[in-house]
Amino acid sequence: MSATSTRGVATVGAPQAGRPQGIVAGDDELAAVAYGADGLVVAVVQEATTREVLMVGYMDAEALRRTLDSGRTWFWSRSRGQYWCKGETSGDRQWVRRVAYDCDGDALLVEVDQEGRGACHTGERTCFYRAFGEE
Amino acid sequence: MSATSTRGVATVGAPQAGRPQGIVAGDDELAAVAYGADGLVVAVVQEATTREVLMVGYMDAEALRRTLDSGRTWFWSRSRGQYWCKGETSGDRQWVRRVAYDCDGDALLVEVDQEGRGACHTGERTCFYRAFGEE
Repeated sequence: MSATSTRGVATVGAPQAGRPQGIVAGDDELAAVAYGADGLVVAVVQEATTREVLMVGYMDAEALRRTLDSGRTWFWSRSRGQYWCKGETSGDRQWVRRVAYDCDGDALLVEVDQEGRGACHTGERTCFYRAFGEE
Repeated sequence: MSATSTRGVATVGAPQAGRPQGIVAGDDELAAVAYGADGLVVAVVQEATTREVLMVGYMDAEALRRTLDSGRTWFWSRSRGQYWCKGETSGDRQWVRRVAYDCDGDALLVEVDQEGRGACHTGERTCFYRAFGEE
């Protein structure tokens, strides 16, 4: 039994052999995260190998805990008002290598291995597939 | 006189030879930006060459306009309630190469050439210099 499965989130994407299996964060590290008045912190997701910025989502403390524990990205959907695990429906899963937090604790940087087609629901690899002045 | 200086922002950092001199965005592109109830959109700043994620800031429509026009990064400071141009005090300026917007328009990705020591007020190159479990 993996360390992840003992935390009760293995059913939403058990780690494959060689996949990251979660990150153990200290209480002082977790306390450094400065959630907004809405209880959320912005999370930037970057492909670990290509360093492409894939998407931006939001986490509350529980979504961050699930992300660290499971080695998969979990977010809080502001529009749907519920947790979601990236790729759970599409199969385009994100395997977490590293989660950094910024100097004032109000932003996270999640480095992942992106599986499948990519991060964007449109089928693009990155959500940032359009740029000003490039139409 | 450069194209930038005619827009009245040259005094806060005139482009050097070879520096990007602003981006012309169409009205339809600008209309794709979905500002929050507070009038702000999150902006992720990435070093164009190394692809390192340097910082996260917030822009309103005016800060985005200044960024596109001047080729320097402008943000709205939520804590100070004022505009600020990155590096104006420190000299650690960011020269904008590209500004992308995500699929639902509620996040920006600003690719820059970072000048000086880096993006973080602590002296680190990136604001994301700490990661969970790496103490």
